[in-house]
Amino acid sequence: MLNLDFHPSGRHFLQIPGPSPVPDRILRAMSLPTIDHRGPEFGALGRELLDKVKQVFKTANPVIIYPASGTGAWEAALSNTLSPGDQVLMFETGHFATLWHKMALRLQLAPEFIGLPGYEGWRHGVQADMIEARLKEDRDHAIKAVCVVHNETSTGVTSDIAAVRRAIDAAGHPALLLVDTISGLASADYRHDEWGVDVTISGSQKGLMLPPGISFNAVSDKAIEASRHNLMPKSFWAWDEILEANQNGYWPYTPSTNLLYGLNEALDMLLEEGLDNVLARHQRWAAGVRTAVEAWGLEIQCQDPAVYSPVLTGVVMPEGIDADAVRKIIYERFDLSLGTGLGKAKGRMFRIGHLGDCNDLTLIATLGGCEAGMKLAGVPLKGSGLAAALDYFAHHPLNSAD
Amino acid sequence: MLNLDFHPSGRHFLQIPGPSPVPDRILRAMSLPTIDHRGPEFGALGRELLDKVKQVFKTANPVIIYPASGTGAWEAALSNTLSPGDQVLMFETGHFATLWHKMALRLQLAPEFIGLPGYEGWRHGVQADMIEARLKEDRDHAIKAVCVVHNETSTGVTSDIAAVRRAIDAAGHPALLLVDTISGLASADYRHDEWGVDVTISGSQKGLMLPPGISFNAVSDKAIEASRHNLMPKSFWAWDEILEANQNGYWPYTPSTNLLYGLNEALDMLLEEGLDNVLARHQRWAAGVRTAVEAWGLEIQCQDPAVYSPVLTGVVMPEGIDADAVRKIIYERFDLSLGTGLGKAKGRMFRIGHLGDCNDLTLIATLGGCEAGMKLAGVPLKGSGLAAALDYFAHHPLNSAD
Amino acid sequence: MLNLDFHPSGRHFLQIPGPSPVPDRILRAMSLPTIDHRGPEFGALGRELLDKVKQVFKTANPVIIYPASGTGAWEAALSNTLSPGDQVLMFETGHFATLWHKMALRLQLAPEFIGLPGYEGWRHGVQADMIEARLKEDRDHAIKAVCVVHNETSTGVTSDIAAVRRAIDAAGHPALLLVDTISGLASADYRHDEWGVDVTISGSQKGLMLPPGISFNAVSDKAIEASRHNLMPKSFWAWDEILEANQNGYWPYTPSTNLLYGLNEALDMLLEEGLDNVLARHQRWAAGVRTAVEAWGLEIQCQDPAVYSPVLTGVVMPEGIDADAVRKIIYERFDLSLGTGLGKAKGRMFRIGHLGDCNDLTLIATLGGCEAGMKLAGVPLKGSGLAAALDYFAHHPLNSAD
Amino acid sequence: MLNLDFHPSGRHFLQIPGPSPVPDRILRAMSLPTIDHRGPEFGALGRELLDKVKQVFKTANPVIIYPASGTGAWEAALSNTLSPGDQVLMFETGHFATLWHKMALRLQLAPEFIGLPGYEGWRHGVQADMIEARLKEDRDHAIKAVCVVHNETSTGVTSDIAAVRRAIDAAGHPALLLVDTISGLASADYRHDEWGVDVTISGSQKGLMLPPGISFNAVSDKAIEASRHNLMPKSFWAWDEILEANQNGYWPYTPSTNLLYGLNEALDMLLEEGLDNVLARHQRWAAGVRTAVEAWGLEIQCQDPAVYSPVLTGVVMPEGIDADAVRKIIYERFDLSLGTGLGKAKGRMFRIGHLGDCNDLTLIATLGGCEAGMKLAGVPLKGSGLAAALDYFAHHPLNSAD
Repeated sequence: MLNLDFHPSGRHFLQIPGPSPVPDRILRAMSLPTIDHRGPEFGALGRELLDKVKQVFKTANPVIIYPASGTGAWEAALSNTLSPGDQVLMFETGHFATLWHKMALRLQLAPEFIGLPGYEGWRHGVQADMIEARLKEDRDHAIKAVCVVHNETSTGVTSDIAAVRRAIDAAGHPALLLVDTISGLASADYRHDEWGVDVTISGSQKGLMLPPGISFNAVSDKAIEASRHNLMPKSFWAWDEILEANQNGYWPYTPSTNLLYGLNEALDMLLEEGLDNVLARHQRWAAGVRTAVEAWGLEIQCQDPAVYSPVLTGVVMPEGIDADAVRKIIYERFDLSLGTGLGKAKGRMFRIGHLGDCNDLTLIATLGGCEAGMKLAGVPLKGSGLAAALDYFAHHPLNSAD
Repeated sequence: MLNLDFHPSGRHFLQIPGPSPVPDRILRAMSLPTIDHRGPEFGALGRELLDKVKQVFKTANPVIIYPASGTGAWEAALSNTLSPGDQVLMFETGHFATLWHKMALRLQLAPEFIGLPGYEGWRHGVQADMIEARLKEDRDHAIKAVCVVHNETSTGVTSDIAAVRRAIDAAGHPALLLVDTISGLASADYRHDEWGVDVTISGSQKGLMLPPGISFNAVSDKAIEASRHNLMPKSFWAWDEILEANQNGYWPYTPSTNLLYGLNEALDMLLEEGLDNVLARHQRWAAGVRTAVEAWGLEIQCQDPAVYSPVLTGVVMPEGIDADAVRKIIYERFDLSLGTGLGKAKGRMFRIGHLGDCNDLTLIATLGGCEAGMKLAGVPLKGSGLAAALDYFAHHPLNSAD
Repeated sequence: MLNLDFHPSGRHFLQIPGPSPVPDRILRAMSLPTIDHRGPEFGALGRELLDKVKQVFKTANPVIIYPASGTGAWEAALSNTLSPGDQVLMFETGHFATLWHKMALRLQLAPEFIGLPGYEGWRHGVQADMIEARLKEDRDHAIKAVCVVHNETSTGVTSDIAAVRRAIDAAGHPALLLVDTISGLASADYRHDEWGVDVTISGSQKGLMLPPGISFNAVSDKAIEASRHNLMPKSFWAWDEILEANQNGYWPYTPSTNLLYGLNEALDMLLEEGLDNVLARHQRWAAGVRTAVEAWGLEIQCQDPAVYSPVLTGVVMPEGIDADAVRKIIYERFDLSLGTGLGKAKGRMFRIGHLGDCNDLTLIATLGGCEAGMKLAGVPLKGSGLAAALDYFAHHPLNSAD
Repeated sequence: MLNLDFHPSGRHFLQIPGPSPVPDRILRAMSLPTIDHRGPEFGALGRELLDKVKQVFKTANPVIIYPASGTGAWEAALSNTLSPGDQVLMFETGHFATLWHKMALRLQLAPEFIGLPGYEGWRHGVQADMIEARLKEDRDHAIKAVCVVHNETSTGVTSDIAAVRRAIDAAGHPALLLVDTISGLASADYRHDEWGVDVTISGSQKGLMLPPGISFNAVSDKAIEASRHNLMPKSFWAWDEILEANQNGYWPYTPSTNLLYGLNEALDMLLEEGLDNVLARHQRWAAGVRTAVEAWGLEIQCQDPAVYSPVLTGVVMPEGIDADAVRKIIYERFDLSLGTGLGKAKGRMFRIGHLGDCNDLTLIATLGGCEAGMKLAGVPLKGSGLAAALDYFAHHPLNSAD
């Protein structure tokens, strides 16, 4: 029989940018007994959940919860609003934007994929001016939707969604705005209503601190209207029946009961702490980690400080060093998981997740593992990132005015 | 804050035909720490899981595991094998067959829904001769698939899938055979390969004793071949990338890690006990429960003893009694959840689940709650079903030659 | 490696009169992380616990919590108040009274053990008049303490402690009153202050619904005064240092942190439900179970209806039947644990626990297992106790005026 | 209601020298359902446990397990072997030796407390030559036992027990040798049989990685013989009845069932890893932590390198710095609990626990919190202990030949 308790002593440090470590408080909630998903208590749970979750998306509109992982919520956003053959404008921020583009192709849409060129293109956020220019060219409004990734998990770049909204408006274009914030929600600032997003896509296993398995579509009225007429075959993902059943706190088919228990607990934790405090916490961690990278004399994957991610930091390896070989040493010697480089970034960098259920010392441990592992792997370091980050955390207390 | 511990004293009796109670052993497995789904341990888990799960479907072919609930696996079966406009022959066994038919319509297929007429039609299994006759009429093989429900959860009828296979063969028809055994797997006898099924659909929250959230497609070579050419837009559900990634024990997108821990434990439990023993256990429970219904002088929903379900038993209320009012009394007075009548059976019957992590005394408690509740609700009973079932269990030990 | 998950399907029915089943809510609380027992959070927990626990003993005086099982709390009561050679008057209500008497002997006290004669003597409660008579004879007050068991777990007799207090007072005797309510607390009515008890002894694994491991001494001022001068060597059990450290919510040595988490949760559960409701719930269950025993035509171990226990019921087997053989059949066939006959009751009776985290259907299951098992064992039964109890529960709802 | 989930984000670092963090694997085992402690499964568990636990004490003799915390096991050792008035020779290694001495006084023994003078005396281990000298003076063998602490938790000194044995033998003295290894067992090398110890005392909440609540006496034949004749009143702690009941895997009174589940799991974990590997792991951690203390330019509490503890390291603060004020800053700013200075060491030092379920990065986090907190508190540091320890761990892999 397989031993699922892999690590001989102490806790594994899971510092990938999601799935993030699940707090025990949430694991305990998830172990509550499964109940009848058609019974009265379940309806009460559903109504409360559906109400609280809106606060995290900053929306007054409905949020749809799928018993499916985040990739499914991408498909849901596309299949509820678009028809086969529809033109879609997508921006290449990194690997996940690329996967979403590939999905659009498989769903028989006609996506146009724009972006800055090459690997260097992945080191910046969405260029709103490029979107505006492209939409202005589209005089007959053949483009039905603009799709962008808010927090690009493969690079550590958090694009400016408000700017994308302004670009669409400046172009006077009616395209829907679909935004993936799977790894951004509840860690990076996000405002569905204020930013005029039509469909926001998110998942459970990042800032919400749950295991993977449920995902979200926050929807605008305009998106709902589009879903009434679009021609993509849809059933499991269809919003209409879910929205109807949700009015009483139920779902048209069996929901992921135990993950919903966990979601309820996660929402309580986030709202008790205060969403602003949660976001400040992530910004501070990110600043501390970047201080370390700078002290090491290494490059941060994101080249535009305005769009540094508060969720993760990509650390670029010097020429000639295989980032995955470094990760392997760190993993084997220090029981620490880091994110691999994906797609165009493969082998060039690794990613440090600093999200969810962490604290300063978790990150000190993480940076310690990185520093020692990089030295063992022969990565030339200018100075001690560990010392720099420790100093940063010491002199920037969470609730200070700094 | 919502109190999720609803019941003041003792355990709730969850005797609906799924979600079924989750054994503590599985809950404990699900609380293992989330790990990197791209790391080496996860690959080892994936390979072991994908191998063990085949034994439960009785197939040598791949079984695809979705991070989505059972309804999604219905959609996966249709969208991987069929194209918009395709004719599909579906058999109306009850509410879930009806929902699947509705899904086919929403997916722009052309389903033909045959069955015995009216509510009475729901009290029998799939009529293989009707399928054979219909397929023989279809000389040009416009029908691309036959869709049937193995264990119809809404009625307690377990249809004869081997007979459907024989009917298709007798008609010399090339249609694919798609079978839903969401509530049958691991409780009722099921044989994917031997019965020549092309796609078997199942879910986690019934005989596998997991919470809802993951689901399955077991696939034949013929089904895989169909998936290479069909025209339905598909991405999340697409088998190709999953099958490819599964070869190393991974998934193309984030899997439901913690539910997979639970699945691994569930498979260990089932295989340790022995699948034949598991099935015998369910048959015996079902026989005991039917003994009770007969002693009460009530009708069993299923009118054909050859297809009585080992998973659940529908109990028909006499004319003039609202089954949901009876259920409500039983729920409020005895902390016991029973399944409601669905669709055409609404208000006419309730359903007793006898699956998964039960034992004789769980069912004695359940039948006691039913008997007392029915009396309180004014249901005329001929005798004590509780006494009859207790006698049955006492005189039919699990491992006897009886 | 030993498999600690013994039972193949469904939950074991643990219906012994303690340890009682631990609610999941308490198990979850016990899995909270161990913290520094000298840190500030632990002090806050300690102060809250020590305050809430008084309500369950109905005392305004301190309650001492030992990181030791109930037998230890017996020793604590004796060793804090008495000196080697001291005379003690103990009443033989059953096996646990006998064990306590044996402990007094081992602690070099001079216990006098009075009671009604023989096995039949175990079928009645404490005879307060016998105590009064004996104390009146003790003109020079050589007897230093009267020791009685409130709820005798071996027989199902709940003695009248107020009557014992009156007897002591009527005799004008200064002896301390020490009472064991290990299995009575939080299930049977108990009033430390009102009944003038000097030391109340209790444990965690019965009405408090915790695993075994912590125990209690509720103490009167008179008992504390005695502890200042008594000569028994004492250190671990000594009240003085514990009372002092408790003032700030701490303990002089390492307390059972995780069981204290569980205790805190248990107290919340009991106080949320309301102690009166908890007691009424147990009285009703006991009445239902006795209805079953009467319908079977069997004798209840306790022969005085005034002192029937609300916690457990002893069921006497007819002459010639070995109660342990019956228990074995019930255990093996129905996965149900019942209490064995102890001491003078060995082989003559078994004990049904009806305490803590139960509900009506748990007891219906239990009585079903008993009825079927007794029949299989050849016990002649007059009628169906199961049917009688079900009828009782149906017609005596918990919150009715009945 | 009290919130027992104290910490807002991430895991608290509990680096006190016990209670140590409980691995999730053990918490899961402890949540197994409570069973009948007189039933057949419990006997099987008991027999296996009692057998496996001997391996950790390195004894072929019985090990007694108490449902009581470690302080109780001290009392058990004294009360089973000695009589009121007996002379006992105890060695003052630190605070816990002092507490044990105080217990001996309360138990009406006549302990003689020898040691090196003053606070400086606490910075060395047991001086075997002083014991030998004292025993040689005791020509008529009035001293009945020699009591020493193996791993003094208050100072981080692990005394040489084999040397004490040799001293007793060299004196030709028949005194029993009683040794407290509450915080040493399963972290520091310990050999009950080889070192000729008569009673070894231990507890659950240190190297065994359990919550507090159970404790141990490993006993020699000579100790058992003494227990047959000694005059101390004893009942709960008495070995005789426990040893008898243990033969079948049971206990004479209710054991701490759920902690025993945890113990079983802990033993499996330790024996799977191999006790030698466990000990090497602790030695390596201790060496890394001492490297940090040296780099800081601070003193280690233990002044004799031969008896440095592998379990904890005491860090002495410079004159004029209140160690508890430093600890408070570290606790509040870095969510890290360190051990306080106890007794003569109060305010002078803090203690870093490095035992049980740790790994390198846990200790890097701990040392990071210490370093930053000391700086914030104004402690002058010579260099970076964090950097030194990280370097040590990097260049001394666990399984190297170094």
